[in-house]
Amino acid sequence: MRATVLEGVGQVRLVDVPDPVIERPSDALVRVSLAAVCGSDLWPFRGQESFTPGDRMGHEWIGVVEDVGAGVTRLRAGDLVLAPFAFADGTCRPCRDGLFTSCPDGGFWGGHHDGGQAEAVRVPFADSTLVPVRAEADAEPDAELLRRLLPLTDVMATGAHAVSLAGVRPGSTAVVLGDGAVGLCAVLAARRARAGRIILVGRHPDRGDLARRMGATDVLAADDPATAAFVRDGTEGGAGGVAECAGTQSALDLALDLVRPGGTIGSVGVPNGVDRVDLYCLFRHNIALRAGVTPARRYLEPLLAEVLAGRLDPSPVLSTELPLDDIATAYRAMDTRQAIKTAVRP
Amino acid sequence: MRATVLEGVGQVRLVDVPDPVIERPSDALVRVSLAAVCGSDLWPFRGQESFTPGDRMGHEWIGVVEDVGAGVTRLRAGDLVLAPFAFADGTCRPCRDGLFTSCPDGGFWGGHHDGGQAEAVRVPFADSTLVPVRAEADAEPDAELLRRLLPLTDVMATGAHAVSLAGVRPGSTAVVLGDGAVGLCAVLAARRARAGRIILVGRHPDRGDLARRMGATDVLAADDPATAAFVRDGTEGGAGGVAECAGTQSALDLALDLVRPGGTIGSVGVPNGVDRVDLYCLFRHNIALRAGVTPARRYLEPLLAEVLAGRLDPSPVLSTELPLDDIATAYRAMDTRQAIKTAVRP
Repeated sequence: MRATVLEGVGQVRLVDVPDPVIERPSDALVRVSLAAVCGSDLWPFRGQESFTPGDRMGHEWIGVVEDVGAGVTRLRAGDLVLAPFAFADGTCRPCRDGLFTSCPDGGFWGGHHDGGQAEAVRVPFADSTLVPVRAEADAEPDAELLRRLLPLTDVMATGAHAVSLAGVRPGSTAVVLGDGAVGLCAVLAARRARAGRIILVGRHPDRGDLARRMGATDVLAADDPATAAFVRDGTEGGAGGVAECAGTQSALDLALDLVRPGGTIGSVGVPNGVDRVDLYCLFRHNIALRAGVTPARRYLEPLLAEVLAGRLDPSPVLSTELPLDDIATAYRAMDTRQAIKTAVRP
Repeated sequence: MRATVLEGVGQVRLVDVPDPVIERPSDALVRVSLAAVCGSDLWPFRGQESFTPGDRMGHEWIGVVEDVGAGVTRLRAGDLVLAPFAFADGTCRPCRDGLFTSCPDGGFWGGHHDGGQAEAVRVPFADSTLVPVRAEADAEPDAELLRRLLPLTDVMATGAHAVSLAGVRPGSTAVVLGDGAVGLCAVLAARRARAGRIILVGRHPDRGDLARRMGATDVLAADDPATAAFVRDGTEGGAGGVAECAGTQSALDLALDLVRPGGTIGSVGVPNGVDRVDLYCLFRHNIALRAGVTPARRYLEPLLAEVLAGRLDPSPVLSTELPLDDIATAYRAMDTRQAIKTAVRP
């Protein structure tokens, strides 16, 4: 089959690799229906995170089960499944606590595991990892539904995690930092959490209309000196919850500027180049910092139910769609910020 | 009157200063009954925190009201009162949220405000700041009761805040880092929160017996390499709540070693020389960092009720008591760790 590998900085390529096979009874083989390029794929692509040349790429994907190991009981061939961006055994203490990303036997797609920007994936711990979309086998996945479901595997779950960590409550003011796919999904999540006011602070003026359509009540520019004053004046001293969806030093610093005493920063971006956390600032005003990789598996069922009921549609974050053959173009579109997010079709 | 001032590094002295007077209608004048030296007083004393020579000292004190301004309605002369270590107006948004230490018109005792290691203190916003112990005027404060009440003004409230921030729940395992007065009070607070197991990790072997009497089920040494393994093995991968009561880099690093994925570090020590917060470590395992100066006022009434009912006695942390005249000796006893905490009697 063909799979995307990172051969060097700025060099992704679709190459022929051996077809995956069932290796353990708990495995499933899944044919990929739709995958995406994630903002965090860009860190190694740009050389800002270490990688081994030849690493498989892609951790956002959905597909159809082709085969299952003898120990798999909840899935069967033909099931359309959501794959959270980490696999996990489902039985250890962290998994029982809903911390699937801390499972000692789990892992993330890509690297020396199969990646999702490929034709197929071997899924360890398939029963506990995958979430079937429908019970009926042979249901033909509809292209529009795939686009609505794909973001659940990472960015929509991550937006929901940011809003959860930030403790956004009904009627409250939520600030979302970052107008990438995660930030836009956090806007959806804040609306879902019935925030009274949703202030998106971003860097791309052309995403303002989309953000408003998704539920933002205010869209502000991160580099506008008036932004902090606007937020503090409009919220009696700052927002109770700030969903930090960028993972950069400037976003974390801005979060500290915008949060109210006693408030909470929920930080979900993979920290990249963040070398300064102002502990004294947290201490001085009792600000909670809740940073966390999203245990996406925890969010899949409730988000899936809302997509299927027509109440949630994160597909607008997939601004571009290309054949898997054009994976290099897909990365470039993300790297140059021409695309919010690029989906690829095997 | 006489008041303690910091004249230079290592130099505290009791000097004559003008008697405080009512300056605003919301002021009260309070004669100090008992005060204490706090671990955080040692930072400027040692030159590890900036100060202005002549700064007043002392933020842990209780006393008897001598006079009140015309606007004071809840207090009268003769009331024995608890003074939280920060005064606050009680009406602003942070105060209404219980974040008295973030009151923009509030402040901390000492520096250019009156300090508690003195004969008397002018108290701004007396109605919202002070908590009367008894309604009856002229009640002669009993020496033993004063010793039980004094820790409430800082270290006992701070121990309670650490346990609250760390999210210690009934039946859970709480780890307390630091066997100073705050750590020992956090042990009391964890017992009060009905923690099932209370593991104190400290640096002073001679404080183990006291810690056990106060409620610690296990006492471990911070510098013993076996400590982390003991905690992780005994708690399925780490404690859900860690109360970090030292404010040092090594304590924060150890807290990250001892907390479980998805757990919470409640950090209440004034950060001193902490220049490294491992955001990636927090992120990787969804560990919440909740650092905060204690809004002591919030804790005074419930803690007072328990002391008066005989259910709480933090007085053992006052290991030494001296006349206010011996304030220099009181600091030295703390600085050399001979005393857990020194009380001074004006």
